[in-house]
This record gives sequence, structure tokens and C-alpha cells, in this order.
Amino acid sequence: MHQIQHLQQLVNQAIAGKTFKGEPAELYDPINYIMSLGGKRLRPVLLLMATDLFSGSVLKALEPAVAIELFHNFTLVHDDIMDKAPLRRGKPTVHAKWNENVAILSGDVMLVEAYRLMMNTEDQVLRQVLDVFNETAAGVCRGQQIDMNFEQEDGITIPEYLEMIRLKTAVLLAASLRIGALLGGAAADDAGKLYKFGESLGIAFQLQDDILDVYGDPEKFGKQTGGDIIANKKTWLLLKSRELAEGLDEEELNYWFNESDAGPSEKVRAVTAVFDRLGIRTLAEAEMNDHAEHALQQLEAIPVPAERKKLLREFAEQLLVREN
Amino acid sequence: MHQIQHLQQLVNQAIAGKTFKGEPAELYDPINYIMSLGGKRLRPVLLLMATDLFSGSVLKALEPAVAIELFHNFTLVHDDIMDKAPLRRGKPTVHAKWNENVAILSGDVMLVEAYRLMMNTEDQVLRQVLDVFNETAAGVCRGQQIDMNFEQEDGITIPEYLEMIRLKTAVLLAASLRIGALLGGAAADDAGKLYKFGESLGIAFQLQDDILDVYGDPEKFGKQTGGDIIANKKTWLLLKSRELAEGLDEEELNYWFNESDAGPSEKVRAVTAVFDRLGIRTLAEAEMNDHAEHALQQLEAIPVPAERKKLLREFAEQLLVREN
Repeated sequence: MHQIQHLQQLVNQAIAGKTFKGEPAELYDPINYIMSLGGKRLRPVLLLMATDLFSGSVLKALEPAVAIELFHNFTLVHDDIMDKAPLRRGKPTVHAKWNENVAILSGDVMLVEAYRLMMNTEDQVLRQVLDVFNETAAGVCRGQQIDMNFEQEDGITIPEYLEMIRLKTAVLLAASLRIGALLGGAAADDAGKLYKFGESLGIAFQLQDDILDVYGDPEKFGKQTGGDIIANKKTWLLLKSRELAEGLDEEELNYWFNESDAGPSEKVRAVTAVFDRLGIRTLAEAEMNDHAEHALQQLEAIPVPAERKKLLREFAEQLLVREN
Repeated sequence: MHQIQHLQQLVNQAIAGKTFKGEPAELYDPINYIMSLGGKRLRPVLLLMATDLFSGSVLKALEPAVAIELFHNFTLVHDDIMDKAPLRRGKPTVHAKWNENVAILSGDVMLVEAYRLMMNTEDQVLRQVLDVFNETAAGVCRGQQIDMNFEQEDGITIPEYLEMIRLKTAVLLAASLRIGALLGGAAADDAGKLYKFGESLGIAFQLQDDILDVYGDPEKFGKQTGGDIIANKKTWLLLKSRELAEGLDEEELNYWFNESDAGPSEKVRAVTAVFDRLGIRTLAEAEMNDHAEHALQQLEAIPVPAERKKLLREFAEQLLVREN
């Protein structure tokens, strides 16, 4: 069995060894740039763990693992244009460093190259793997569009929010696991259980992100807390608090939501106080734990010795106690 | 054997029957919109003709044919953002009708959906077909980036220009034919000849476009001539005239190239007069004919009865005497 850090290393080596070369440079430099910015490599590591789970080996899944990371980075490049984000992992985004046209087009090439790398599979699973990849890629785009629509919409419900984060975040984690399982020779049913494990894990992961943005330790979290509150982001915490708030709490939430001249730290303090009065943190943690629980049940149900599933369980637990 | 118009009808019916449905609407409405704007459906018709050539049937190639048209329209949607084009086929472009974010993201989904449709092949050709598609998709992106770079560059040579139009225009026509051939069960060698036929035909087609922009009959061409001259577009005609011009002609080309306050019709008249003195039209037509000739030789060399190749020859000839 491989250690998590070992798998991360393996992925990083594979990425470092795969310089995207080609003319013109404007098209390929941004790919190498964004891929070299690092990150936790969650998706390729999950893919490799899934292959390992069913086949006891990971090397044959290395190119599809890089493909998943490349796809993920394609979505970051295009999302950053749409969100007008200046920074990604502390460095200038592709459209900021080059320009929007370069970011659109090199993003397009990344998607194509992701397909190319994803095809490094045995013939008998090629179609299945690409079916999962197509479905997932369309789902991630849908999630991004729904997220953008939410900015303009009022009255978003918690189920609608959960469906958005399922598409935007969870299905790609889930697909990484399903593809890894297929590459490892898993039966369709078992690959499906692993998919559901990833889906629930991904939702729990995003909910934790929402919680940490308000309640995380800034030093461990790596950024100032309260960013979502300042940006009026419709997170699970905000939506739940609006659902529950009455009287003065409701009035206060409305006031801060519409007050654009307020000092940011004052706004964060006041909105967090409302959250606290309504017990939002506990509720959010309960919802997160439900999804995490459901994830682990799916993992349990896969007919593989518990010993072999230890790493995935460990990984899930690490993911959900992280503070960064 | 199928008639060209019949094949166009078949493609249009297949496109009309394939409404892209899904949530949210912002993602799928633009796909149906751009696909319904029409066009000559060159690429899918070429694909179907190639399948027909080797198998005597076209129906099994219909979904990949739609995939090629969808891919082509994806490139139009993203290119129109980059070129800040307000109109496409006389109608508002996607980014003008919705916004840039919608155009980026619905374009991304079109690329994914193109892969999905392209996979409607028999298992034994799936990998080959997708290899061609990947290679081509990356090539088209490269062509677009080179074209954008040309706007900022001086001293572009004719061979560099031909390589740019090969990537930006010709390889997709060529790939349509190669994929159609593979779907029709062609040997790799014959599919390769048909690819080269398409590549040379595509270059000839683009050169004709350059010629028509200056010398076309505005009524038949469907738009005012001289647009490339007004926009200082580095077409084959401009590059060749710069290569040949001396003395007063050279001075005049430079003057008009750098003169942004000139009346457009005055500029078109003056630059066209320089082209005329240098015999650019004849030279451009000779270059175009060379490529067309080379295309037809490739077609000749395919070991299929001449009778069966009549339609492709006819199509190539129609394409190159069009005035619109």
C-alpha cells in the first residue's frame, strides 16, 4: 500500500516530467505555469488510491491522474477569468499574467490535452473512462454557471446550494475515484460505491470550507477569516442563518448584506455574532458530518478487505480535520 | 451516392433534432442558438462524404458529423470573444447576446459535448477517431493563437502565413474527412490521402477567401469588399505585395498601413491599385490553384473507382468557384 505523501510525490514528479511543449509559446507557457503552482493534488491522488484499492498497483493510472489534475487546472484558469480573480495560490492568475484571450485559449488546449492524457488506458476500459469524464466535465461547467447565477438570485434554498457544490466540487472528486477504480479493474457496482464516497466526501469538504472561512484559525487556515461574509457569498452558513433568523437577527443580516460602506471587520464581527446566536456552526458541522458519515458508509460497503481501505479512510479523515 | 444538398439536409435535420437540454439555461441556450444560425455545414458534409466513399452509407456517421460541426461552432464562440466580434452570420454573437462569461462556459460545454457525440463510433475505431480529434483540436487552437500573434508582428513570411491558415482552417476540414474515412472502414493510408486532400483544399479555400475579400462581387460575396484592407489584415495578398513592392508602391503600402484617419473607400481603392500594379491577384490565384491541384491529386490516388469520387471532386470544385 502506498502512503499519501508518496502518491503526492509521484503525481508531482509526473507533472514535472510532463512539460507541455509546442508553438506558439503563449499557448503552452500558461499550462506549465499553472500546473507548477502546486496545490494538494487531491484529485490525482484519489484516482491513484482507487486504482491501488482494486489492483494493488498505481503506475498504469499515472497519466489519467495527471489528466484529472490538468482538467481541474483548466477549470481554475477559466473560472478565474469569469471571477476576475487576480491571484491563484498567491501568484498572478493566467489572465492577469498574460491576458484574457491567452487564458481562454490555453484553457481550451488544457481541456483537449486532458482528454489526450485520459486516453492512456487499456482499450477495454477506454469508453467507460471517457463516458465518466464527459459527464463530469459537463457537470463541473453546470456547477460553475449555477454558482454565477446564485450571485444574482435571492431565495436560494439549502438543497439548491448543496446541488451546486455537488456539481462544482464533488463530482470531480467522485469521478477521479470512479476512473481510478475502472483502471484498477473494479466492477461497475464497486466503482459506483466509490463514486458516491467521493461525492459525499466532496460535499463535506466544501461545507468545511464554508465553516473554516468563518471559524478557522487564520494562521492554520492560511488566510484571513470572514472573506465570504465580506463578499456576501451565499454559503451554507449564510443561507441557513437567513432561513432561521427572526426579528432583530433577520434585520441585522439584511442590514449587513445591503451595507456596502461598512468596515469589513465590523461586518464580519456582527454577522458572526448572528451566526453564533443561531447556532449555525453546530448545524453546519452536523450537516458536514452527515455527508462524511455517508461517504464512509459507501466505502465500508465495498467488498475489499478493510485493511486495503485504510488509506482512503485516513485520507478522508485528514481532509475533514484540516484547518487549511 | 448522396447528393451534396441531400447531405446538407441530413446534417441540418440531425442538428435540429438534437436540442441541447440541461440546466442552467444560460449554458445550453447559447449552444442551440449558435447551432441554429446555419452555415454551409462544410465539415459534417465532408465527413459524411468520406464515410460514403468507403462504405456506401452515411447514417452511422451522423453523430460524429454533428460533433464536428459542434466543435467548429465552439471555436467560433470563443474566437468571437477574442476578436470582440459583434456579429456572426448577421446575428449577435453569443458574448454580445448574453455575456463573455456565458460565452466562455457554454463554449467549454460545446467542446465536451463534441467529444461525447464523437464517441458514437464502433469500438474498433474509437481510439483512432479520438486521436485525430485531439490532434486537430489542439492544432486549431494553435492556429488561432498564431493568428492573434500575427496582429502584433511584422515581417511575417508567406510560409508562416500558410502554416497559420493550415492550422486555423485546413486541419479541421482534413480531420473531418479522415474521421469520416475511418468510420467508413478505410485503410489508414487511404484515410491519410483524404486528409491531405482536405488540408490542401482548406488552404485553397482560405486563399480564395483572401482574394474574394478584395476582388469578389459584393452582391454575390454577401459583404462589402475591402474589409481586410481596411483592417490591415495580413492576408496572403498583403504579405505578397509587401514582398514585391518597391519604390513608390512600397511607400504607398506603408502609408496606407499606418494611416488610420483615411477614408475607408479611398484606402481600399489605393491599396487595390497597388495590388493590381504588382499582379497580386494572378499570383494569389496561382497559389490557390496549386493547392487545389494538389488536393485533387491526392483524391485521384485513392484506390476507389473514379465514379465514387465524383461527389468529392464536385464539392471541391464548387467550393473553389463560389463567390460567397
